[in-house]
Amino acid sequence: MARVLKIDHLGIAVKDLKEAVEAYKEILGVEPVEIEEVPQEKVKVAMFKVGESYIELLEGTTPDSAISKYIEKRGEGIHHIAFRVEDIEKAVEELKDKVRFVYDKPRVVSNGKRIINFIHPKSAHGVLIELVERKEEH
Amino acid sequence: MARVLKIDHLGIAVKDLKEAVEAYKEILGVEPVEIEEVPQEKVKVAMFKVGESYIELLEGTTPDSAISKYIEKRGEGIHHIAFRVEDIEKAVEELKDKVRFVYDKPRVVSNGKRIINFIHPKSAHGVLIELVERKEEH
Repeated sequence: MARVLKIDHLGIAVKDLKEAVEAYKEILGVEPVEIEEVPQEKVKVAMFKVGESYIELLEGTTPDSAISKYIEKRGEGIHHIAFRVEDIEKAVEELKDKVRFVYDKPRVVSNGKRIINFIHPKSAHGVLIELVERKEEH
Repeated sequence: MARVLKIDHLGIAVKDLKEAVEAYKEILGVEPVEIEEVPQEKVKVAMFKVGESYIELLEGTTPDSAISKYIEKRGEGIHHIAFRVEDIEKAVEELKDKVRFVYDKPRVVSNGKRIINFIHPKSAHGVLIELVERKEEH
């Protein structure tokens, strides 16, 4: 079976979440399913459902957040792709000799709802890839 | 109904298609469904199926191809997101006063299989968005 079940979400780094939400509401023709602040990750997030995936707009809430630093360096745009996996531990175990992971071990985030790790862009032709196992859907 | 049905594909600009295919075969755990050269668009393309979407690796075949120029300027990475729409003419008509399109009119590409237009990154917070109507699936 394929390692990756689907595109879980695309993370887009934006300067102003409110403005970006208005633009993507027009383009996608739907309202966001969720807007929230995640203080641990220093971001405000708006999620839009598109087919089986989400579009995640991310605004950094502090200058030292990963999103703010990304925009400082590269401007607004796509920050990462997240691929859904059934079992993150298994996926990391199978891939760890072939790609470089950002964390030594998968991390539990979003109050226990997601377990994630990132494949470094150097291992994926310039793309920051999140692998995510979800304990529950949005 | 939502304007956008799903993420049709993600286009990733790569320097060396063969190397990139090897890397993504490992990460995704599947073989590409198609590898082809598209001389009109000056690219070689490898498509991987991931859930209901595709990951499209793109290598420019000439220095003046859009993909080669993108890599020259920004390095390898995600080049565009394509959203599937039912009716491209209708989508462009509804959006044309709100976003900037790259082409005056939708273009027929891939030997008549796809009709596309691009929303300029300035209208989408740094993201080049393709809207695509497909006449047939891969």
